Formats: sequence, structure tokens, C-alpha cells
Amino acid sequence: MPYVTVKMLTGRTEEQKKALVEKVTEVVSETTGAPKENVTVFIEEMTKNHYAQGGVRFSDK
Amino acid sequence: MPYVTVKMLTGRTEEQKKALVEKVTEVVSETTGAPKENVTVFIEEMTKNHYAQGGVRFSDK
Amino acid sequence: MPYVTVKMLTGRTEEQKKALVEKVTEVVSETTGAPKENVTVFIEEMTKNHYAQGGVRFSDK
Amino acid sequence: MPYVTVKMLTGRTEEQKKALVEKVTEVVSETTGAPKENVTVFIEEMTKNHYAQGGVRFSDK
Amino acid sequence: MPYVTVKMLTGRTEEQKKALVEKVTEVVSETTGAPKENVTVFIEEMTKNHYAQGGVRFSDK
Amino acid sequence: MPYVTVKMLTGRTEEQKKALVEKVTEVVSETTGAPKENVTVFIEEMTKNHYAQGGVRFSDK
Repeated sequence: MPYVTVKMLTGRTEEQKKALVEKVTEVVSETTGAPKENVTVFIEEMTKNHYAQGGVRFSDK
Repeated sequence: MPYVTVKMLTGRTEEQKKALVEKVTEVVSETTGAPKENVTVFIEEMTKNHYAQGGVRFSDK
Repeated sequence: MPYVTVKMLTGRTEEQKKALVEKVTEVVSETTGAPKENVTVFIEEMTKNHYAQGGVRFSDK
Repeated sequence: MPYVTVKMLTGRTEEQKKALVEKVTEVVSETTGAPKENVTVFIEEMTKNHYAQGGVRFSDK
Repeated sequence: MPYVTVKMLTGRTEEQKKALVEKVTEVVSETTGAPKENVTVFIEEMTKNHYAQGGVRFSDK
Repeated sequence: MPYVTVKMLTGRTEEQKKALVEKVTEVVSETTGAPKENVTVFIEEMTKNHYAQGGVRFSDK
């Protein structure tokens, strides 16, 4: 604990994901007081045809 | 806000997903009072081997 | 199937939630072809101190 | 109801997933008192580059 | 890993929840091959006004 | 986008949650390239009787 889920569109590189996970873990640990080794991060990717704002999918914009 | 997630089996066409997102956004806006542009919709698809009712997966029926 | 989750700030009345669930079920059924009785809706409420955009919680605005 | 989601790394066989779903449904039914046919199970798989503990992804270990 | 989430209506006793968590952990471990100590279980409770099937909330039945 | 959910046990102060949300938003923006104003953060709290590792709830330890 804590468990962090980052949901975003596909397209980030492995380097970006690696850095994302490192930095998020650091700041979650710092601000909650949980040891770094107890922080879990999940990345969930979505495609543009499965994500909409205002009723319009990003694949239809 | 609101954030709507629709989880369903794969197999719907892009036309169906487009209409789904449009109509859901409309009625969520109408019934909650939130402006349409503030409504976010996510579609999550699952396959038949990852979905079960009564202990039996849909791929095993 | 489908399973719909609507995540929103607390504050909607029971009448609004009842209408939300009815209308969402109707349009999900129409656009996906699933029978109405197979559509499940979950409402999840959050409070303003647990929701942030741009790094600022709604309780701090 | 209940709805059970099992999130795990890819790599389990169809036989393992089938058994997982059967056994989880049985014990959820037994311990909650819900009839077996009312128990729904979802499996969600993740890849090693989308899962981290202690700030390190399993794909980087 | 695995991470199991059980979503259900409020009303189960602490004894039921304790047994639920024990039994689910056992069978998830057996069928996936993951050591018991690596299995995490989350319980999420919902109220009858936030759960609907066929467009009707359980609080309105 | 991105949408970040932080799931943790109850007990953090409002100051901790405020700092958590600020810092997470900053590093998610930096590492993914998304503008800070597009980053959404949700906090989800759980109680010790709804969270278990190795088949034992934290309320039973």
C-alpha cells in the first residue's frame, strides 16, 4: 500500500513509463509516509477509440 | 466529471461504440446536470475467456 | 453485460440517480444490442477532497 | 453480485484460468451466501512493463 | 500479485468477510501457482441505491 | 489524461493528501509530457477490514 493506477492513451515509450513509475513511487512514498518498497504502480493503456470527452471519441476528432 | 466506464465483451463495431459514447454522454449530462463537455467515457473490452458467470467462462459455454 | 460504472462527486439526489440509471441502461441497450435486463450500473461517489485536476483538489479551490 | 476481479500478470494457461474461475466462484458463494449463478468473475491481465513495486517495473528487474 | 477485488452489497458480517478473504486467497494461490503471501484482496462495498440491473436500482425494487 | 487513482488505507491527513495530489500531478506531467491541467487524480480510501495480504485482513493482524 498505496496502489497507484495510471490510465493513459497508448504512445508513451518504455523510457517514459520507466521514469513515470520511478517518480510516482518516490512522491507517493514521500507524501504518504509509506516505504518505497510498499508502493505498487499499475499502468493501464487505452486506445483513442475507447476514450471520449463531450461525447466525441479521440479517434473521431 | 462524471467519469463513465463501460465494460463489455469485444465484438461491437466502431459505429456502435461511437453511438454508445454519444448517447451515454447525453443522458448522463441530462440527468446529473453536468455540462456535456465535462463527461468522460471510457470503453473497456474483455474477451470470453476472461469473463465468467456461475463459475463458467463464456469461452467454455 | 455490459457493466457501466458512473463515478461522480456526491450531491446528486435519489431522483437524479434513479433517472441516471434508467436512461443510461436504455441507451447502452439500444447502442450495443444487449437486452436491458443484462445491463448493470454501478454508481461510485467521491468527495471533493479526493478529486483533483491540475494538481488542485476541488476542496482546495 | 458479488463481482470479482482478478488482476494478474499474463502467462497463466487456459486450464489455470478455468480452474481459477470455478474455485473462486465456489468459495465466494460459500462465504457470502450468494447463489453461485449470481457470482461474476473478470480476469484482467497485465504485462511486466506495466507493473512495478518499489519503483521498479517487473520488466526492468 | 494476483490482486483480487470483491465488490458486493453491504451487509456481510466481519466473520463472513474474514472467511471470504481466507478462502479466496487459498484458491487463487492454488490455481495460479502464486505463493499465498503474494495474494492481495480488496473488498468494496456498495449500497442498494448505487447498484442497478435492468435499469432499476435495488433500492427501488 | 492521464487519470491517476491512488488507493490507500484511511489515516492520511488533509495536508498529506493535498501534497500527494500536487506532487503526483507534477511528476506525471513531467514524465508523460501531458500538460499539468490535463492530469486528474482520484484518491480512494479503504479500511483495514477490507484489505488483506496472504489471506489475513489488516484488521485481524
